[in-house]
Amino acid sequence: MGGDFGPSVTVPAAIRALATYQDLSVVLVGDESQIKALLQHAGTALRARLDVLHTSVTAHHESKPESVLRNSRESSMFLAVTLVKEGRVDACVSAGDTGALLLSGRHLLKNIPGISKPAMIASVPLHRVESKAYILDVGANVSNDATELFEFAIMGSVQAEAVDRISRPRVALLNVGQEEHKGTPAIREAAERLAQTPAVDYIGYIEGNELFSGKADVIVCDGFSGNITIKTSAGVVRVIEQLLKAVAQGGLLSRLSTFLAAPLLRLLRREIDPAQFNGASVIGLQGIIVKSHGHADTDAFYHAISQAYRESSDRVPEKIAARMASLLPIPAA
Amino acid sequence: MGGDFGPSVTVPAAIRALATYQDLSVVLVGDESQIKALLQHAGTALRARLDVLHTSVTAHHESKPESVLRNSRESSMFLAVTLVKEGRVDACVSAGDTGALLLSGRHLLKNIPGISKPAMIASVPLHRVESKAYILDVGANVSNDATELFEFAIMGSVQAEAVDRISRPRVALLNVGQEEHKGTPAIREAAERLAQTPAVDYIGYIEGNELFSGKADVIVCDGFSGNITIKTSAGVVRVIEQLLKAVAQGGLLSRLSTFLAAPLLRLLRREIDPAQFNGASVIGLQGIIVKSHGHADTDAFYHAISQAYRESSDRVPEKIAARMASLLPIPAA
Repeated sequence: MGGDFGPSVTVPAAIRALATYQDLSVVLVGDESQIKALLQHAGTALRARLDVLHTSVTAHHESKPESVLRNSRESSMFLAVTLVKEGRVDACVSAGDTGALLLSGRHLLKNIPGISKPAMIASVPLHRVESKAYILDVGANVSNDATELFEFAIMGSVQAEAVDRISRPRVALLNVGQEEHKGTPAIREAAERLAQTPAVDYIGYIEGNELFSGKADVIVCDGFSGNITIKTSAGVVRVIEQLLKAVAQGGLLSRLSTFLAAPLLRLLRREIDPAQFNGASVIGLQGIIVKSHGHADTDAFYHAISQAYRESSDRVPEKIAARMASLLPIPAA
Repeated sequence: MGGDFGPSVTVPAAIRALATYQDLSVVLVGDESQIKALLQHAGTALRARLDVLHTSVTAHHESKPESVLRNSRESSMFLAVTLVKEGRVDACVSAGDTGALLLSGRHLLKNIPGISKPAMIASVPLHRVESKAYILDVGANVSNDATELFEFAIMGSVQAEAVDRISRPRVALLNVGQEEHKGTPAIREAAERLAQTPAVDYIGYIEGNELFSGKADVIVCDGFSGNITIKTSAGVVRVIEQLLKAVAQGGLLSRLSTFLAAPLLRLLRREIDPAQFNGASVIGLQGIIVKSHGHADTDAFYHAISQAYRESSDRVPEKIAARMASLLPIPAA
């Protein structure tokens, strides 16, 4: 029910995902009548892998997400996360309010043993098609200490290994310079610990202008920095799209430019558009939650479902737990 | 002597600035023989407003900027800031190492009364040509408390008023959401104080994707966030420039595209290129220091000199001092 477009986007995206992934089953949580109206054109074979869990309550965007827990326990979002908690599904995908989704996840699901705080992990599109880097945290927290940054590095590394089959992901800490003495005490301490952890291929600090360079597979930062980083990137892309459109509509070169601008805009969309890289995941909980953009279209929401499918098939939470356990100091005899 | 190109960029830029601003005088601090070789084509009238202060020492990019104070007191950078301290010049422009420049400034110049910490203030290019927003701090500090953020808001506001003739600059705090409860305690406290300060037109929180929207004239954040924000923006622009060039060189459309991509690239450069908006200033000290990008070309360094000229003519430090004094609580009788 979430996002700007509700079932008109989420239902067709789910049908497409069912067609792609033969071993996928989907439970659609929300208003049954709205959902069923959209299922009419789904084939019988697909419908066999599709359930509807009815609720007429939707978690509205509240002034404080806390009120979700007080007022919206029957909401589609809360029920969907409850399905994860009860082991009835492997993952939850929502385009609803991020704060409410995070709060529901934290309330219902336990942290992975060894993980202090969950994070939001997103993909940064890179210049080379088919290539991407993960960045975390992009907004589950506002500030993070060295231990949390260290744990984010482990989690991002496991995610890149498990989902993207990168054998030894290069992990960097986002910072304001390359030199050792740069940054906050938390970043410097995390750097020291990562440098002493053979399970992580820690490559050092990375600056904002190198996020898209392909230098690192996993970029680690506090939730505040990560959030403004990905939002700023989206803002720059929007400015440039507007520029390209303005050129395409300009008098002198208008027709020729429109012709030229079309492939450019396609390229921009393919390489930079968040729709292609939709689906920031909550990572660190004993369960999979993928957050789609609120303004996601069917294509973007399909990508979010695909992300959940891959994290689930690749057993990301279990692998994080195993990695964390392997890092625990051996107790003295 | 600073930056990637030294006098070959800074000297021609200074000559151009002298030609533009009839009441400008320039002291070039550095290696006299290198500088004089580049002055041969400057007219006699311009030369009359130009001095050279010789030193053969250059502040090299050190592993720790502190060593500049220990080892490079005869460096061109340190001497240039000393000229500001001694009142022999109104402003210093350098393309040298940012850390060293900041440290020299802090060491030699006093803070403006009422200002706890200086900041770096930069311009964010906006979609509409001729329009810009200031953002501070972009890297003088790594973290900032509520008082410092509040002071940044005052300083940015005064700068936009004095230099850009904006009668009542709209000031926003960079945050991860619009709602009151979002962000760090420091941000929320700064927001409360700004809302109670009639001297500032505080408009609330702004997110990363709105930096380029023209919503705010002054965007306030801690130095870490500001630094990664402007560097990330530059990184996105670089990715898109590469994309445009790749399209222009592609087989099918190559010739036509190259012809048509030219205005696009010009537009990109004009609207987004940091060269157009070069010159992040140190703000909050009793003296003007403008930091040019290390890779600035003549055009960009000229803009940095222009920025210093405007801040000096418009008496920005004095106006900040006056504004801060006007905010001080009236002592009880």
